Amino acid sequence: MPVLDLSQTSPDLTRVVCDIPSVSDDETTLADAVHAAMSGLDHLEVVRCGDTIVARTNLGRDRRVVIAGHLDTVPINGNVPTRDIEIDGEPYIWGRGTVDMKAGVAVQLKLAAELRAPRVDITWMWYDHEEVDAERNGLNRLSRERPDLFEADFAILGEPSDGEVEGGCNGTLRVAVRTHGVRAHSARAWIGENAVHMAAPVLARLAEYRPRDVEVEGLVYREGLNAVRISGGIAGNIIPDLCEVEVNYRFAPNRTVDEAVAHVRSVFAGFEVEVTDASPGARPGLDAPLAQEFLAAVGAQPRPKYGWTDVARFSALGVPAVNYGPGDPHLAHHDEERVPIAQIEAVERGLRAWLKPS
Amino acid sequence: MPVLDLSQTSPDLTRVVCDIPSVSDDETTLADAVHAAMSGLDHLEVVRCGDTIVARTNLGRDRRVVIAGHLDTVPINGNVPTRDIEIDGEPYIWGRGTVDMKAGVAVQLKLAAELRAPRVDITWMWYDHEEVDAERNGLNRLSRERPDLFEADFAILGEPSDGEVEGGCNGTLRVAVRTHGVRAHSARAWIGENAVHMAAPVLARLAEYRPRDVEVEGLVYREGLNAVRISGGIAGNIIPDLCEVEVNYRFAPNRTVDEAVAHVRSVFAGFEVEVTDASPGARPGLDAPLAQEFLAAVGAQPRPKYGWTDVARFSALGVPAVNYGPGDPHLAHHDEERVPIAQIEAVERGLRAWLKPS
Repeated sequence: MPVLDLSQTSPDLTRVVCDIPSVSDDETTLADAVHAAMSGLDHLEVVRCGDTIVARTNLGRDRRVVIAGHLDTVPINGNVPTRDIEIDGEPYIWGRGTVDMKAGVAVQLKLAAELRAPRVDITWMWYDHEEVDAERNGLNRLSRERPDLFEADFAILGEPSDGEVEGGCNGTLRVAVRTHGVRAHSARAWIGENAVHMAAPVLARLAEYRPRDVEVEGLVYREGLNAVRISGGIAGNIIPDLCEVEVNYRFAPNRTVDEAVAHVRSVFAGFEVEVTDASPGARPGLDAPLAQEFLAAVGAQPRPKYGWTDVARFSALGVPAVNYGPGDPHLAHHDEERVPIAQIEAVERGLRAWLKPS
Repeated sequence: MPVLDLSQTSPDLTRVVCDIPSVSDDETTLADAVHAAMSGLDHLEVVRCGDTIVARTNLGRDRRVVIAGHLDTVPINGNVPTRDIEIDGEPYIWGRGTVDMKAGVAVQLKLAAELRAPRVDITWMWYDHEEVDAERNGLNRLSRERPDLFEADFAILGEPSDGEVEGGCNGTLRVAVRTHGVRAHSARAWIGENAVHMAAPVLARLAEYRPRDVEVEGLVYREGLNAVRISGGIAGNIIPDLCEVEVNYRFAPNRTVDEAVAHVRSVFAGFEVEVTDASPGARPGLDAPLAQEFLAAVGAQPRPKYGWTDVARFSALGVPAVNYGPGDPHLAHHDEERVPIAQIEAVERGLRAWLKPS
């Protein structure tokens, strides 16, 4: 088992953590190493649930903060082990996981070891299966098995946010919009009814749709309504009797899932619409006192998060949550994933400034 | 090996031939039986090429007619062996191949045996692999290996035509119409460009298109322009960078393939169009003297054939050709495929009336 030396610098620790492969379903080696490192620290109570490791202080502070990060990555594509590279004179660590989100995890591990008496109680969480179905998400599993561990006043996820603070997140809804025709041989098309042709207005409405920019608690969320898949037809000489357009609606966190569904149904009025997947958004939650203190301490301007992240899970449990981590989110899952070393150090400084005893 | 008794009535022979399964690629048993039956007839010269059997008279007549039928069927779906059924008091033979096209083959086999001195020389052809790729078609193979066997003044295919004479056939063209966008995460759709949305005008043009009715040599051909398949998108959270619409154009036989391609390109002007498959149509050829005699003898009104059949192959070789066979073409490939017994007998009478010594 690899051993984590938490006295290393956070960039060095980033290299070590990235070089332990942990693609979803294969997190156990890294989880074992994290578990062993935390178990050696007498200021932390350690709980393990599958490959999710929880470590928390119990200092009797009047406020508690969850700080969490996932251990898994999307599949490796020739980009492990990490390499040190330079772009325009700036040093980066390049490789799978550097952005999403092992640099953030490395900072958290180091601070968990070093902050023996932080100004708030901290519940650190490192979890598995974030990059796959929500059903398998380690945080999801933990919230069912140990809901008590989620009692907190504020939560920070180390998801990449370019070293800025990203508040809340858009919700996401997937629907299948379907047209039904009548199958026929294409040599006698007039006997049938072409379901693909019937879908012309569906694509026209999508092409004409102008998504909203919505301000929620001072942050502007961009929405989006997009076909993500289309399919129809079974053979080169058959008039299709079914066309299905899968549409993904990303909606601002001032809309509930029900309101989002109603909006999409109104856009596709006259067509069959089936909801296949829905996750609520999360309000930024930046009006919470702890959030205000955090923003002031790290000296960051908050931005909206467009993608769905696990902050919505905390939000649904009534815990205001933000994303704060090193790395450009546009490079997450990218084969050229890379993180500026200065951002790792800045996030470490930011968290340390906020958490140090006052 | 099953033995064919060609002295049976043509409906009885239809039952026997249908009850020998011969799905494409599995025609050998039936081809062996046909070969054996023909080899026992001293008025016919027999040639075998794979599972295609040719049997011809050599009477020194000044005119020669090809009469052809394919031995294969589409896959069986619980509809072999045949059954006798009655609909509105009319007797039918029900089962795979009864329409497409073993009733026609049965009539041909019986007449090949009985017409020892027809008024024209006859080249009978029964061939394999009609229901699959054109490249594997037995008639296609034979025309390459023994083009001499196709020297004739007129050709009749026994494809189902409801006992009427169907002249010529529409051509068929397949094209892929593609749009190209830019892939992006659907949470940040504005970074990408949605190829499915870009296809909206392609579907709109298809939906608005009004196909022509075209008169060619007195027969009216209905055209058709249809999407037969559409696909785009790779995941539920990715903006698609490619959408492909497969379009099938069925065009009247007064258009060449090149003209058909130019027409389709003009319909989809501004979009990428790739031709993936093209087969020319066939003019009816009913002004040929033998065709006129044939129409008069069988007492039929000619109709246009919409679907593509092997008459186009003869037409391309300079041999006027028509379809003439029992069975409703709409029931071809149908699981409830069935042929009226009276139509089998009528087609037998028609061919016999025309071919008998004058």
